[in-house]
Amino acid sequence: MKKTVLFAAMAIATSVGAQELPSDANEMIKNMYTEALGEQQGYQWLKYMCEEIGPRPSGSEAANVAARWAQQAMLDAGADTAWLQEVDVPKWYRGAEWSKAYVGGEPIDLPTTALGGSVPTPKGGVRAEVVEVGSFEELEALGREGIEGKIVFYNTYMDHSLISTFNAYGGAVKYRWAGAMEAGKYGAVATVMRSVTLLRDDLPHTGAMSYGESDVKIPSAAISWQAADELDQLLGREEKVELELYLDCGIQGRATNYNVVADFKGSEKPEEIMLVGGHIDSWDLGQGAQDDGAGCVHAMQVPSLMKKVGYQNKRTIRVVLWANEEFGLDGAKEYARWARENGVHHWVAMESDGGGDVPRGFGVSADDARLEQLRGYKKLLQPYGLHVMAKGGGGADLSPLRGHDNFFIGYRPESQRYFDFHHSARDNIDAIHPRSLEMGAASMSALYYILDHLD
Amino acid sequence: MKKTVLFAAMAIATSVGAQELPSDANEMIKNMYTEALGEQQGYQWLKYMCEEIGPRPSGSEAANVAARWAQQAMLDAGADTAWLQEVDVPKWYRGAEWSKAYVGGEPIDLPTTALGGSVPTPKGGVRAEVVEVGSFEELEALGREGIEGKIVFYNTYMDHSLISTFNAYGGAVKYRWAGAMEAGKYGAVATVMRSVTLLRDDLPHTGAMSYGESDVKIPSAAISWQAADELDQLLGREEKVELELYLDCGIQGRATNYNVVADFKGSEKPEEIMLVGGHIDSWDLGQGAQDDGAGCVHAMQVPSLMKKVGYQNKRTIRVVLWANEEFGLDGAKEYARWARENGVHHWVAMESDGGGDVPRGFGVSADDARLEQLRGYKKLLQPYGLHVMAKGGGGADLSPLRGHDNFFIGYRPESQRYFDFHHSARDNIDAIHPRSLEMGAASMSALYYILDHLD
Repeated sequence: MKKTVLFAAMAIATSVGAQELPSDANEMIKNMYTEALGEQQGYQWLKYMCEEIGPRPSGSEAANVAARWAQQAMLDAGADTAWLQEVDVPKWYRGAEWSKAYVGGEPIDLPTTALGGSVPTPKGGVRAEVVEVGSFEELEALGREGIEGKIVFYNTYMDHSLISTFNAYGGAVKYRWAGAMEAGKYGAVATVMRSVTLLRDDLPHTGAMSYGESDVKIPSAAISWQAADELDQLLGREEKVELELYLDCGIQGRATNYNVVADFKGSEKPEEIMLVGGHIDSWDLGQGAQDDGAGCVHAMQVPSLMKKVGYQNKRTIRVVLWANEEFGLDGAKEYARWARENGVHHWVAMESDGGGDVPRGFGVSADDARLEQLRGYKKLLQPYGLHVMAKGGGGADLSPLRGHDNFFIGYRPESQRYFDFHHSARDNIDAIHPRSLEMGAASMSALYYILDHLD
Repeated sequence: MKKTVLFAAMAIATSVGAQELPSDANEMIKNMYTEALGEQQGYQWLKYMCEEIGPRPSGSEAANVAARWAQQAMLDAGADTAWLQEVDVPKWYRGAEWSKAYVGGEPIDLPTTALGGSVPTPKGGVRAEVVEVGSFEELEALGREGIEGKIVFYNTYMDHSLISTFNAYGGAVKYRWAGAMEAGKYGAVATVMRSVTLLRDDLPHTGAMSYGESDVKIPSAAISWQAADELDQLLGREEKVELELYLDCGIQGRATNYNVVADFKGSEKPEEIMLVGGHIDSWDLGQGAQDDGAGCVHAMQVPSLMKKVGYQNKRTIRVVLWANEEFGLDGAKEYARWARENGVHHWVAMESDGGGDVPRGFGVSADDARLEQLRGYKKLLQPYGLHVMAKGGGGADLSPLRGHDNFFIGYRPESQRYFDFHHSARDNIDAIHPRSLEMGAASMSALYYILDHLD
């Protein structure tokens, strides 16, 4: 360990483009990790959010309970101000949901969940022959003749060969988002899809879908990986396979949720905001531990860890916990609108929405000079597993802030496990590894500590 | 992804000291990962070892069932030879075990497990006052006066502030290994210790202990983290705390276990051995999934993945699965003895005994020139999360091979979760993340593919 510290200290002085940090920079960063790993405040916070508050879907009262709780937690942690910003959101409702496959003999139950935004089925459910496609191209090739009156089964996959599971997600999620919209064009009566996950298990995963501008709105659901395998095998036989789908769900008007905005005032440049955030809403099937309770407590820990190690931030650290990311980015849009109206200057903004696994690094949307400057501090960060300082970063909730004179950072934890939990009933506190979560919080604090010293 | 590939290709030609690899090196390595992540052969193997064979402690028949199964699996995977090498090992037995704390009122049950090698308690158990120490220095300070006739409670910790949990383990394990030996010198009647783990849960963790040359042999057990917290709190009160400990355990003579040795003959330099191994034994409380079933299937996958991507190894790839690592390194010593007697030339030897989490890199025990040469290929490895090529590596089972003209490599997966499972009833197949495990196998294959091209 000693050697590493020595090398890192040398790096501070010699790296090209790097501004000099205080001589105790290494120690301050080390102390942030030690505090986080010892006290595990972030994990305790997350445990409360998950177990005492629970799922926080768009429009839910639980999302508001969480917002008020986080507001108080930030005040307790020493925030100068912490307020709740009203956000108008759609109210999502989910009731009973199931599907059964029929191919002679007993019906086969398939673990099923409605996609977020789907219309319900008729009260009696919908039953029709299943037609399987592996892509939109296959759907188009079948055309109205092959699709009309049927239930389309998107047997589509995340690409297991991609090392970044976020990249694999990007390639597969279009079938969730637009599957019903596309199948509706050819007269399908409903769609089901293989859950967007890489874990070969038996839980369905939900997530947002859209009908776009179309008036044709057909029910749309996900089935588990194993159910998709089974359905695919049934369809491989000669016989016709029918599916019966029942979904009681839908958008039930609008409701008010809240963004949490907590400021830890800077001592030298209080008007320059270093924003750090995650989204406080979650899907309804699990407790939203990975998505994005982890990001919330990461953000909440940043100013808290700075205080604990005795660091007085020069710029203002602002924690923002956004309402309703999952179902339309309403919180992020409202915050950005308010910030523009009030001439808020975000010197930098960082988001954590990749879960609570061990740190790998950061993605940075900035000009090359800034990126190179940050890479100059890698020797300070690599002892903590932070090897990645990639070009391009930030997340969905930062997107409405883009186009200003600032830069964006996305925290990048290890991604291998993330989609095992994502949008499923498995996304609970036991999906979180305490040390890994805390290392994420310390990593984000460390980077903001470095940035607070730069011009 | 394309950009990364291009940079990597440039790196092959330009890195100082790096020998040129075939033009399809990038593709071959990518294919290894794709094969591993798609088929998940290693995970299937491990599932069989864990669920069908189960715990494989020293001297057990299960260890031999596992050896015969692995021998056949290697033949099925195309090994030219696969044989079993007899190893004489101690036979470890564990029966009932428990402890209770008494401090007035009802006794309090503490989750307890005998350390490996402990003598049993008398049939009626042992009951005595507890004295808590935080170090050997505290034990020494108390002396015979403070210790005699009592049960010593080592309330010792892994250092949570260390980022490498293996380093933290190294600092704490001495109390497990030598705690009874030291306490016995002062007349203690038994020892219990806080389990060597970083997870604050309620399962005890076992592991080897030793009485050294001493004739004083007192029973020695571990209690769970939460039990240690509770006992510590009880001892913080004014009242005297007694502990009643019962252990039915011990070494019951000797037995024969087996090393598995499987060769995949090289086409150009068959006499140069590239050894890759893990240990096939485990502790008895869990299925030995992380420790070290993961290492076994990592090793087994190396030649298997090479075959699957159509690579013909020039040197001989030898898979060795060692018997009884946990309880004396008997398998490793016997293999090394045999290898020396038969003039085997290990050009390189690699061990995986750090679990099945995501890849971080390798530790290499070699001269600086070799280490620099390997670092020259980092652009080939970093896309897979392999950022570490540290000086110093190999593992316990390679130690008897040291001192020859060869070099050693230890595979280094992420270490944060490892000691949550280590030597406990939690070390089962569900402790393993399939993709992370497979990425480890592909990482080791990739490095051996590179090495097979070097002089």
